[in-house]
Amino acid sequence: MSLLTVGTVAFDTIETPYGKAEMVIGGACTYISWSASYFTNNIHLVSIVGDDFPDYELQRLKDRGVNMDGLKIVEGGKSFFWAGRYHNNMNNRDTLVTDLNVLADFDPILPQAAKSSKYVMLGNLTPAIQKSVLDQLDGSQKLIALDTMNFWMDIAMDELKEVIGRIDLLTINDEEARQLSGEHSLVNAAKVIHEMGPKFLVIKKGEHGALLFCSDDIFYAPALPLAQVFDPTGAGDTFAGGLMGYLAKTDDISMDNMKRAIIAGSAMASFCVEDFSLNKLQILSMPEINERLERFKKLMHFDLIL
Amino acid sequence: MSLLTVGTVAFDTIETPYGKAEMVIGGACTYISWSASYFTNNIHLVSIVGDDFPDYELQRLKDRGVNMDGLKIVEGGKSFFWAGRYHNNMNNRDTLVTDLNVLADFDPILPQAAKSSKYVMLGNLTPAIQKSVLDQLDGSQKLIALDTMNFWMDIAMDELKEVIGRIDLLTINDEEARQLSGEHSLVNAAKVIHEMGPKFLVIKKGEHGALLFCSDDIFYAPALPLAQVFDPTGAGDTFAGGLMGYLAKTDDISMDNMKRAIIAGSAMASFCVEDFSLNKLQILSMPEINERLERFKKLMHFDLIL
Repeated sequence: MSLLTVGTVAFDTIETPYGKAEMVIGGACTYISWSASYFTNNIHLVSIVGDDFPDYELQRLKDRGVNMDGLKIVEGGKSFFWAGRYHNNMNNRDTLVTDLNVLADFDPILPQAAKSSKYVMLGNLTPAIQKSVLDQLDGSQKLIALDTMNFWMDIAMDELKEVIGRIDLLTINDEEARQLSGEHSLVNAAKVIHEMGPKFLVIKKGEHGALLFCSDDIFYAPALPLAQVFDPTGAGDTFAGGLMGYLAKTDDISMDNMKRAIIAGSAMASFCVEDFSLNKLQILSMPEINERLERFKKLMHFDLIL
Repeated sequence: MSLLTVGTVAFDTIETPYGKAEMVIGGACTYISWSASYFTNNIHLVSIVGDDFPDYELQRLKDRGVNMDGLKIVEGGKSFFWAGRYHNNMNNRDTLVTDLNVLADFDPILPQAAKSSKYVMLGNLTPAIQKSVLDQLDGSQKLIALDTMNFWMDIAMDELKEVIGRIDLLTINDEEARQLSGEHSLVNAAKVIHEMGPKFLVIKKGEHGALLFCSDDIFYAPALPLAQVFDPTGAGDTFAGGLMGYLAKTDDISMDNMKRAIIAGSAMASFCVEDFSLNKLQILSMPEINERLERFKKLMHFDLIL
């Protein structure tokens, strides 16, 4: 099935305790598309870049089956740029620079073929832009997922709640789930958020994994314990890309298959953090991915003997 | 198989955002023994109390098969007392009072029958006292587990490392694992700690669950997501009690059975936090416990389709 991804395509400069990477490829849509491309080659990307963005990187995405008709390239414009520095524990980071550049005028126009995508992943953007994408869809979608962050809850909560009311799956972190719902317990937060609209809620907890809620069902996917987390940038988007790519491949949104999709996302995220930028995500093979899925099974399964 | 538990039997005064419980029953050994008693009725308890500790509570433990020959009751003495207040997030707490009382002179004497216990759980105490218990054992043990905390790492690291070198399973939290090993990554911390002696390492992460390490094998048990965590006091000890009680019942320390034991501990801990003190732990039934074990399976299992 087809997957539409909307979000940023950008440059990042990243400092971690292990080193610095300057002006490397980043952006939610980039991570989502690369990650999903291991599961499906029917992807529409909708984003905006300046003419400073390397053709080579766009071609690599095309080569993986990503349709770029929805990518606007602004002549003379500069691509979105983010710079950040991670603390020693890798769980916290400081944003050093956010240059919106061409993103300031992003008004996504969906190509005709993208409007009927069965699966849609809206990366973190202003709620107004996310709403504009929803308005262009033809209504035939099977599952629409949306990622957002506390920043929009602080400055545009009403608009954000309006778009959340129109989607099927919301991905946010634990503190954001508490802020959005006003509930401290994640179980109670999930109840409140389900009532806002989304049938599925994924609460991301970084190194502590992710929780999937669907009415009274809960599923817990741990993060794979790794000897070294090199750079967490893009891990959440890579997770979402794996999840949505797996759903687009299998076209099954039962709770049992959602569990597998969450694990697929977790496995992809575990690769993402092992190197800067897309370095690891761009060189994976299916046997490597399958081996990691097996590791999740070993990490989580037990035979219940009562 | 027989289980020896050594640790505090105490009074607690606890404040949480949900209320206050004054001079209620607490202590590591109490939680461990109650929790284990749902899996085995062959338990030796070794501890110390003053004559202020209610006979009724001691009788309830005896009624569950806990042998109290190793409990010293000091005439005219006062039992160990701890008071603490939890913050709103329930993950942090302030200690308000620590009155050692009779615990200051605790010199555990193992009854003859306890010296050959196949399973041993050493609750958090000074490393010197833990060492004295190890010295009294007859050497026939199948698995010796030890709990400790950062306080002893700060003031008695060498002595602590000596006892850690003599045990099979260590339970500590994530920050303590980092402090003990000098490694930030828990995977690397586990390697260093295995080299210190323990074949098994359990890293407790509170609301984020627990990790079991055994050489290159890792197992992740989440904490059961609950609508309300009422009082976390004793959750770690209840976890250890369920784990060790399950091992004493099944007498199997293969990795597969250790996984089940960790889940048994997690299930017991999920009950513990639902009420103050031992209130919930003292009224459980096996069908309730089994129902919760089933919930863990639902929370963690997925069918891998490659």
